[in-house]
Amino acid sequence: MADLGTRPSDSIQSDSIQPDSIPPDAKPHVVILGGGFGGLAAASQLANANVRITVIDRRNHHLFQPLLYQVATAGLSAPSIAAPLRQILRKQRNVTVLLDEALDVDCTQRRVKLANGTLDYDFLIVATGATHAYFGHDDWAAYAPGLKTMDDAFTIRRRVLLAFEHAEREDDPARRQAWLNFVIVGGGATGVELAGALAEIARHTLPREFRRCDPRQANVLLVEAGPRLLPGFDPTLSAKAQRQLERLGVQVRTGTAVTAIDDSGVMLGEQPLTARTVLWAAGVAASPLGRLLGAPVDRAGRVQVSADLSLPEHPDVFVIGDLANVMQDNGKPVPGVAPAAKQMGRHAASRIRARLNGDNRPQPFRYRDDGALATIGRMAAVAQFGRVKFAGVVAWWIWLTAHVYFLIGFRNRLVVMLDWAWAYWTYQRHARIVTGSDDAKNTHLSNDA
Amino acid sequence: MADLGTRPSDSIQSDSIQPDSIPPDAKPHVVILGGGFGGLAAASQLANANVRITVIDRRNHHLFQPLLYQVATAGLSAPSIAAPLRQILRKQRNVTVLLDEALDVDCTQRRVKLANGTLDYDFLIVATGATHAYFGHDDWAAYAPGLKTMDDAFTIRRRVLLAFEHAEREDDPARRQAWLNFVIVGGGATGVELAGALAEIARHTLPREFRRCDPRQANVLLVEAGPRLLPGFDPTLSAKAQRQLERLGVQVRTGTAVTAIDDSGVMLGEQPLTARTVLWAAGVAASPLGRLLGAPVDRAGRVQVSADLSLPEHPDVFVIGDLANVMQDNGKPVPGVAPAAKQMGRHAASRIRARLNGDNRPQPFRYRDDGALATIGRMAAVAQFGRVKFAGVVAWWIWLTAHVYFLIGFRNRLVVMLDWAWAYWTYQRHARIVTGSDDAKNTHLSNDA
Repeated sequence: MADLGTRPSDSIQSDSIQPDSIPPDAKPHVVILGGGFGGLAAASQLANANVRITVIDRRNHHLFQPLLYQVATAGLSAPSIAAPLRQILRKQRNVTVLLDEALDVDCTQRRVKLANGTLDYDFLIVATGATHAYFGHDDWAAYAPGLKTMDDAFTIRRRVLLAFEHAEREDDPARRQAWLNFVIVGGGATGVELAGALAEIARHTLPREFRRCDPRQANVLLVEAGPRLLPGFDPTLSAKAQRQLERLGVQVRTGTAVTAIDDSGVMLGEQPLTARTVLWAAGVAASPLGRLLGAPVDRAGRVQVSADLSLPEHPDVFVIGDLANVMQDNGKPVPGVAPAAKQMGRHAASRIRARLNGDNRPQPFRYRDDGALATIGRMAAVAQFGRVKFAGVVAWWIWLTAHVYFLIGFRNRLVVMLDWAWAYWTYQRHARIVTGSDDAKNTHLSNDA
Repeated sequence: MADLGTRPSDSIQSDSIQPDSIPPDAKPHVVILGGGFGGLAAASQLANANVRITVIDRRNHHLFQPLLYQVATAGLSAPSIAAPLRQILRKQRNVTVLLDEALDVDCTQRRVKLANGTLDYDFLIVATGATHAYFGHDDWAAYAPGLKTMDDAFTIRRRVLLAFEHAEREDDPARRQAWLNFVIVGGGATGVELAGALAEIARHTLPREFRRCDPRQANVLLVEAGPRLLPGFDPTLSAKAQRQLERLGVQVRTGTAVTAIDDSGVMLGEQPLTARTVLWAAGVAASPLGRLLGAPVDRAGRVQVSADLSLPEHPDVFVIGDLANVMQDNGKPVPGVAPAAKQMGRHAASRIRARLNGDNRPQPFRYRDDGALATIGRMAAVAQFGRVKFAGVVAWWIWLTAHVYFLIGFRNRLVVMLDWAWAYWTYQRHARIVTGSDDAKNTHLSNDA
């Protein structure tokens, strides 16, 4: 970076300097950890900047997480909602993608420790997101898988599909019903979407295909510890979402805490409930990398950043997306959603460009609320844009359109639209294949008699 | 079955008896082991027969194996070539599908031992197919995965995609080239198809996406121990297939035996070749169930059946598909291909129907050769129908049309056609996502420095 100091600090023309006119090693090195919504937005905002960029991710693909629950419930194929990071960034010549895992950051030395070596940076953007958390009950993970990665989605798909297979083989009515009881813990968007999809599978997709058990006997129970579903939405929409779910056949219990989970089921307060399939959509914890940056973190492990998203003591390190604890002007936290991560990625990238141009003024990040959407099932969704609220068919169409629009790749948009149209008319879900295996007891077919 | 003995043995009207007019337990029970091409054809041929049928498979889906190499090479999504057995058979009310694994058969007691219980049969159709075999070198399996199941395809896809990621990270030229060397062992249809697809990925799909390594430096080597590729085809087509592969950039070595495989590469006779990715397309062994039937088996474990595909000592047990050793009239063995399995399935089912009608005459199975197809790459394939032979573009169009036609499900046909058209114009392969992990050393990113 030293050689940049000679440029006039008020230049706004530095973009027009051709990157190739400076030797690559002399260009400032921006390292972006994480190829999610935030990391990709930052990389793309730096497309014409006179920097070299390295994007590090431990997975080779960007995941369109808002539709991950559809892979978990067999409605979409995995490749339709994932795109290789290299392919997305192939035309941006100042980006190198590396498949690796960041283990630690030395903010003083400006160095990232990777699983396979180290990497020096001039600017660092940490965008490694969040994973699910079990509130100190890590033993629950084996019984109640969460939904963050593609492999998580395959695990949930496998358990849900195998549960009906177990039920079909089971002669004892109580044990059969245990396989037909599904509990989803957590009434946020993911929990609501999973519950709605499971109810549709049980009521519409599977019934004609089983001979001994009746999938319509399935109970889908959505448990939320707080007073209402979708706490991020207006209370009237929470109530409408609950009514729409109940119409699909989902039982909703709000104000109910899950106190224990094992392979026989859950404890709801003091009341045991037998269920062989429990899905976790409750807790979110920030990526462990957040705690290694030397800055204070909140209870969920999110980093307390300055108003411009940088670290108070290290202005060349930015933390964005689900890993950052940022407040809105109204005092509420910025929600952990894709649009927020993208806005933060663009903000961090703009700050880096400004600094390279000698503009060191702190420019605070301001979250623009583009609205919130959650889908429940066929023709059922809720949507909220400021004071404007929708529920039902209109919200569902908005949800469909927005999700297809934001998907990456023409092929994926086309195939997802086809798959949705197909599922709408036939009630079929085309990705109903069981692959892989996991170690939890209740999914090994051979472990129960 | 006893109550069926009173019917006139020459009746050809038994189909018109409504299945529901006889109590279910009194109907003869046909058990079909395996939901592949043979098992499904048998079940469907018994659609209107007065029997109850149980189809057992340890996987929940029928796999369209001829296109499995396209999942392994990231060209197609897994659900596009797989359909849930229940969904395929849902309208056939005399069929029950059970997800289970057959462990043994007692032909005297007419009983199948499953992983979860036992099942009595009146007629048994064993259609459990084949798997890959390493000719006594089972330790090669860890280094050279074969391609039979969907999970095999994911393993190959993961290893191929990660090899280029390793190469991109590797600074040492020799070690980098080791990651860019791919060896495919076996020059049958699967080996040819894998080699052609790998060459296309390296030459056309990936180059613009890597910054440090050049995927075009990849070497794809196809090794065949016999004198020519595609031994099931006419020698002129073998030669054309080899030329088409070479034009795509594949190196072909016939008459070359692989004598050792480990994580550094292969030994070709006495000559070592460094390659971090080795794929196995050479040996096929019949399902282990074949050896448990009490009938003689050949070296590959295939069961020596009577001319009507039943066991010589147990005429109520039929063995079909890749598990059966059957000769054509010309003295050659019936090939292990989907059309042969389907024909055998229909034959076994017809024999069961005839016997139920009192017709016990042995009716020999006759294989009808519908021709053979193998694809090599873009506009390149070979096709043979009796004496009529095609190579190049015409064969490629025949291959495309036939494979789309035989795929199960309108949605899958449409999406596969779309994906092929997309791949043809863009050179992209849309399913380039790495999921899961395996234990072999060379695929763990963190295991090499």
